[in-house]
Amino acid sequence: MKVAIAIDSFKGSIGSVDAGNAAADGVRRVFPSAECFVSPLADGGEGLVDALAPALGGDVLTVEVTGPTGERVPARYALVNGETAIVEMSQAAGIVLVPKDSRNPFATTTFGVGELVVHAAKAGARKFLVGLGGSATNDAGAGMLQALGFRILDAEGREIGRGGKELLRAAKVECPEETRKMLSGLEFTVACDVTNPLCGPSGASAVFGPQKGATPEMVKTLDAALANFAAVSGGDREAPGAGAAGGMGYALKTFFGARLVPGVDLVLEATGFAERVKEADLVITGEGRLDFQTSMGKAPAGVAKLALRYGKKTIAICGAEGEGAKAVHDAGIIAYFPVLRKVTTLEEAMAPEAAAENIRSTVEEVFRIVGDRVLSP
Amino acid sequence: MKVAIAIDSFKGSIGSVDAGNAAADGVRRVFPSAECFVSPLADGGEGLVDALAPALGGDVLTVEVTGPTGERVPARYALVNGETAIVEMSQAAGIVLVPKDSRNPFATTTFGVGELVVHAAKAGARKFLVGLGGSATNDAGAGMLQALGFRILDAEGREIGRGGKELLRAAKVECPEETRKMLSGLEFTVACDVTNPLCGPSGASAVFGPQKGATPEMVKTLDAALANFAAVSGGDREAPGAGAAGGMGYALKTFFGARLVPGVDLVLEATGFAERVKEADLVITGEGRLDFQTSMGKAPAGVAKLALRYGKKTIAICGAEGEGAKAVHDAGIIAYFPVLRKVTTLEEAMAPEAAAENIRSTVEEVFRIVGDRVLSP
Repeated sequence: MKVAIAIDSFKGSIGSVDAGNAAADGVRRVFPSAECFVSPLADGGEGLVDALAPALGGDVLTVEVTGPTGERVPARYALVNGETAIVEMSQAAGIVLVPKDSRNPFATTTFGVGELVVHAAKAGARKFLVGLGGSATNDAGAGMLQALGFRILDAEGREIGRGGKELLRAAKVECPEETRKMLSGLEFTVACDVTNPLCGPSGASAVFGPQKGATPEMVKTLDAALANFAAVSGGDREAPGAGAAGGMGYALKTFFGARLVPGVDLVLEATGFAERVKEADLVITGEGRLDFQTSMGKAPAGVAKLALRYGKKTIAICGAEGEGAKAVHDAGIIAYFPVLRKVTTLEEAMAPEAAAENIRSTVEEVFRIVGDRVLSP
Repeated sequence: MKVAIAIDSFKGSIGSVDAGNAAADGVRRVFPSAECFVSPLADGGEGLVDALAPALGGDVLTVEVTGPTGERVPARYALVNGETAIVEMSQAAGIVLVPKDSRNPFATTTFGVGELVVHAAKAGARKFLVGLGGSATNDAGAGMLQALGFRILDAEGREIGRGGKELLRAAKVECPEETRKMLSGLEFTVACDVTNPLCGPSGASAVFGPQKGATPEMVKTLDAALANFAAVSGGDREAPGAGAAGGMGYALKTFFGARLVPGVDLVLEATGFAERVKEADLVITGEGRLDFQTSMGKAPAGVAKLALRYGKKTIAICGAEGEGAKAVHDAGIIAYFPVLRKVTTLEEAMAPEAAAENIRSTVEEVFRIVGDRVLSP
């Protein structure tokens, strides 16, 4: 019996890997010699370092970089085998780094993200796994480019400043030889869970600007600024995901040739989950709350999709069932089981040890019936 | 797909048959043409009429009889096809009919139970299904015998009175010809979930007397009274179940040749459940709270045992899991699933419609994985 397990964290309760290990315990209660492969699972880009570094045996480094509003901030990234860097945009340009009343996407910059890339590249990283999401910025990744040495010039040939609004003035982008050299041979894979284009009503400014502090007026200005930057830099502003993280998707694609993939795919690819699924008898996934959104591309649906690709079946567990959960059946999850064992308070149910034991117990019961043909002959 | 379903009521929430029908709905969500046979399920004897009468299409009659303390009380029994009577001892001699401060097992009588038997026999009943349990009496069924016309005489040949203490004076039991005629051809099957002998430290008086109001002194007297009655009536006071319901088991066995069976067996036999299990692909049982007691002879364990006899597997559902529930695996229940879908209050979880939907949803998910071999080829 081989089982491939990738369960999203039960938010506020048990982490992804702990949940996976508990499920593995449950499997082994029924099949003591079962081989269980536990992969972390994460939606989107926030938390990418913590999700992947332990699984890949990466070293986590803390570097001081320029924060979204220009102040210096400590930012974490991970280096695996000295050659793969795991970089989380929110570490250097995160919305959580900016107090609510000083959020201003005209000014916030992704410069620190660029500094992280430079740091990792100098440390030897050739392969970059980048997590988007949770950003405070709307600068189309221009700050990152500036940190790497790109020169973004105005009509008079002077370098523009940092921040989204400055892009209104951009007229030309130059890549110095030194920058070109540094980028040469680097490979970027980006965890990106949105498909928004860079500009327009579904673009970065219109959709994500307001939550970063943009007024309707500012949204118009930022949208024009990003459109101008796209025009002068020549990338595909309509590319799905170009509008992710304040336009960071655009810069990563246009200047680094990055591959944008759903966060769950990036994580599962990085941990070699697909290889394990190929050999598995069954796949287990899950998340804290399983509902109609689950089937619409959330992490467990990504696991089920991957499993289906190899003709494997996926069973899900969850902390709770929400509205419309049955839709997961159409997303390749053949059955799902809430792990609650009795009526308790939310607090009791979410205590990590209680959640772990509930997961063990539920998976045990499930495997008692999947492990054999149950129907009587 | 054929499924045999017998789920105990979720006490205070959903009744046995409603729970069974909800489970059947869940099965049919996966296998629309599944044949589901739903049997009521009940532990012990209390509630036998309500459990069986609807399932067997019986008429429920209310008759006025002598209550445990001599007052007249309305008592219900059921008549199926004019030939099978379902009689519940507690209807005519129940502890609930006696206010707590006037409980006195010296005096309480099973006379009313005898009146029910007479009523049913006169109405044509040949087969009696009798539920013990919940009695206020400790008279070894002597009251019932008296109602049927048996003459229990003292050393002077005078009839003794009613109540357990009177049995101290019993010297002889006579069965008049008329009574013999009435009993001839009657067949009694008794739902009895205890194996206590009539007398001694595990006997009716010692074990059940106190809860019926007997002081330690009274227990001694009653134990002696029952021993005397056994001596003069010649039955087997050591027979398992003779001590059930204040010694009612003794009278039923000794004078009516009754067969004592566990309550769950009686119910399942009456509904023809065994026949359905024989043809079933899978059996479903369950109860409100599944715990270590379940495996120790409670109703779902009885269902699993029956299923095992025919080589069938049983899956259980439950309102909640209690301590030591895993022991049910050894009682033939291959797996069990609490039906809770999310954190709620006990009140919400126990609302009958919520319980029904939770049962449907849980059984649906379970059958999605039992209906086919789940493991990938």
